[in-house]
Amino acid sequence: MATTIGILGGGQLARMMALAGAPLGLRFRVLDTSGDACAGQVAPLVQADWNDFDALRAFADGIDVATFDFENVPAQTAHWLAERVPVFPSPRALAVAQDRLAEKRLFEQLGMGTPAFAAVDSRADLDSALARIGAPAVLKTRRLGYDGKGQYRLRSTADADPAWAALGGVPLILEQFVPFDFECSVVAVRGRDGDFRTWPLTRNWHADGILAASLAPAPGDARLADAAFAHARALGEALDYVGVFALELFVHGGRLLANEMAPRVHNSGHWTIEGAQVSQFENHLRAVLGLPLGSTASRGPAAMLNWIGELPSREPVLADPVGHWHDYGKSPRAGRKVGHATFAAADPAGLREALQRAGAALGRVEQVAPVIAALG
Amino acid sequence: MATTIGILGGGQLARMMALAGAPLGLRFRVLDTSGDACAGQVAPLVQADWNDFDALRAFADGIDVATFDFENVPAQTAHWLAERVPVFPSPRALAVAQDRLAEKRLFEQLGMGTPAFAAVDSRADLDSALARIGAPAVLKTRRLGYDGKGQYRLRSTADADPAWAALGGVPLILEQFVPFDFECSVVAVRGRDGDFRTWPLTRNWHADGILAASLAPAPGDARLADAAFAHARALGEALDYVGVFALELFVHGGRLLANEMAPRVHNSGHWTIEGAQVSQFENHLRAVLGLPLGSTASRGPAAMLNWIGELPSREPVLADPVGHWHDYGKSPRAGRKVGHATFAAADPAGLREALQRAGAALGRVEQVAPVIAALG
Repeated sequence: MATTIGILGGGQLARMMALAGAPLGLRFRVLDTSGDACAGQVAPLVQADWNDFDALRAFADGIDVATFDFENVPAQTAHWLAERVPVFPSPRALAVAQDRLAEKRLFEQLGMGTPAFAAVDSRADLDSALARIGAPAVLKTRRLGYDGKGQYRLRSTADADPAWAALGGVPLILEQFVPFDFECSVVAVRGRDGDFRTWPLTRNWHADGILAASLAPAPGDARLADAAFAHARALGEALDYVGVFALELFVHGGRLLANEMAPRVHNSGHWTIEGAQVSQFENHLRAVLGLPLGSTASRGPAAMLNWIGELPSREPVLADPVGHWHDYGKSPRAGRKVGHATFAAADPAGLREALQRAGAALGRVEQVAPVIAALG
Repeated sequence: MATTIGILGGGQLARMMALAGAPLGLRFRVLDTSGDACAGQVAPLVQADWNDFDALRAFADGIDVATFDFENVPAQTAHWLAERVPVFPSPRALAVAQDRLAEKRLFEQLGMGTPAFAAVDSRADLDSALARIGAPAVLKTRRLGYDGKGQYRLRSTADADPAWAALGGVPLILEQFVPFDFECSVVAVRGRDGDFRTWPLTRNWHADGILAASLAPAPGDARLADAAFAHARALGEALDYVGVFALELFVHGGRLLANEMAPRVHNSGHWTIEGAQVSQFENHLRAVLGLPLGSTASRGPAAMLNWIGELPSREPVLADPVGHWHDYGKSPRAGRKVGHATFAAADPAGLREALQRAGAALGRVEQVAPVIAALG
């Protein structure tokens, strides 16, 4: 009998997982609160709320293992499911990653540098946190934040009132604003047997809190990459993690500061579809099924450009000798990730030329400029 | 609105097309005479006979363009459909490829060498054909043959009676048996605008009439490859072909002899998924939609091993640093193509080592041996 994977959340991550799993002979079922989640175009979709346990029961009956496209599935749902089918990553790993404070404390315990941070549960907490950390700083909800949502940036202590007005009332965390040199991420996979692998370090650029572009392997110091990989390995082992996760880091004055982890396949790993021997999507499935992990080696330098809100013209990417187009099958909406393009070249010069062509042809010169600059 | 492609035939070729098309934002509908055709696992499947015009009407209503996973769709069905939606390749191209005699005559007209052949419509025709061509020879049905089906090999003229007993009664063709040095294929794509591209020449090995292994780029004389590409281009232009097709050739004493064409994506092009910038499946879809064709350049030497009847153990392939597994989601059956593996390496030495490992671990030493030998 074919193995069926249940995926909680039916966005583009579930969609790309299902596409990556089909060649392994896997079947999929997707659960999402929306009936037109885009993974439903490539796998059977069940529409249900996260606390609809009748629907969850039917979903669990038809699957061999469950995993996530969305880390903010309620802990209760994950625990309930884990009593019925194997769930990877574990509800415990999910719980840590769902809480910015628990996550930062774990980073600290594991000896990683982090931006200074403090729990904020009251207006008085905010004042004392600001007194200790200083401004600029970022006030964030501890839970349910992603892509810059649930955040308020304080330029000075005078911003405490509007920040509290915007976010106060739920558990918060104040984090030092780090004027980082650049951002990078480790996309890592850990098998059921503890086998641990990382794809090459990825350098990332954000715009309005949303990933705009990635470049891998990140040019620069190999020792920095090795240190980042060691952090990711420690994190994976501490959580007894199974599957793919991403560890986002700031680099500041040659030092790594752990920003956050994502307990799932990650936007900064989309380049692995064409740029690595085995993609993050396939290796995540291999991990949750206890199959041998595939090679995470690079096949050459790759850059990913995210399409936010709406797709640009696809023709320049399709016509490019190293371009690859990814349309998630979503309708356009401001701030929504609707697709991406990856350029997978044989060498950095080839990648630079492709990005120059694409930037001009797509009217995205600003989006490609920092990637080209990083290629040197 | 999303573009929907209708595919006639729902086997592994349709399945791999649908998987390749999803990142382009395409939707699919598949029509097959079997209700459990394996493409139905990744796209909506309509079960109907080829002459069920009510079902065909409903199928045509929901699609923007139609194409084929199966070349033996009745000509009447293809013509009927082409009056309602764009159909690529055209029914005319399909008709030529469906008839071994028409195909061979076109090869001749285009100046390609072919094995000697003669039409056989009667027992007397067979005798005169044998007198002219000699033995060994192969008697084949003109229509509906694939994977060695509908063929009878004559070792001497004394085999004429049993050959006629086995196949007589339908239009036949007698072909000279060529003791070829090796077999190769050109997998080519031609766009609606005439843009023509070939993937690197692929060398092929058959067992019991079914493809067993492919290697690309085929090691050897670049002039031979150029001559094969020129034949494919002439064929594509003569048929005003749109989409991917394969031209299978024998190499005999340094000379190319055209054997047959397949008017569809082809088993000898499966290596393009990991081994080329853009796969045959994606480029076929781009061609039928009138989109820019993608690069057919190799990303390094690649070998494909076909799994016939049943799958071997997948673990050795998954664990291999350059191995890729393709399970078509079919149940095992003698002679049935149920999956393949591709090894996509950085250089020939890496590919040779991977094939040696795989041959030993899978118990497939005989299947990999000629590929390793060809790598030199």
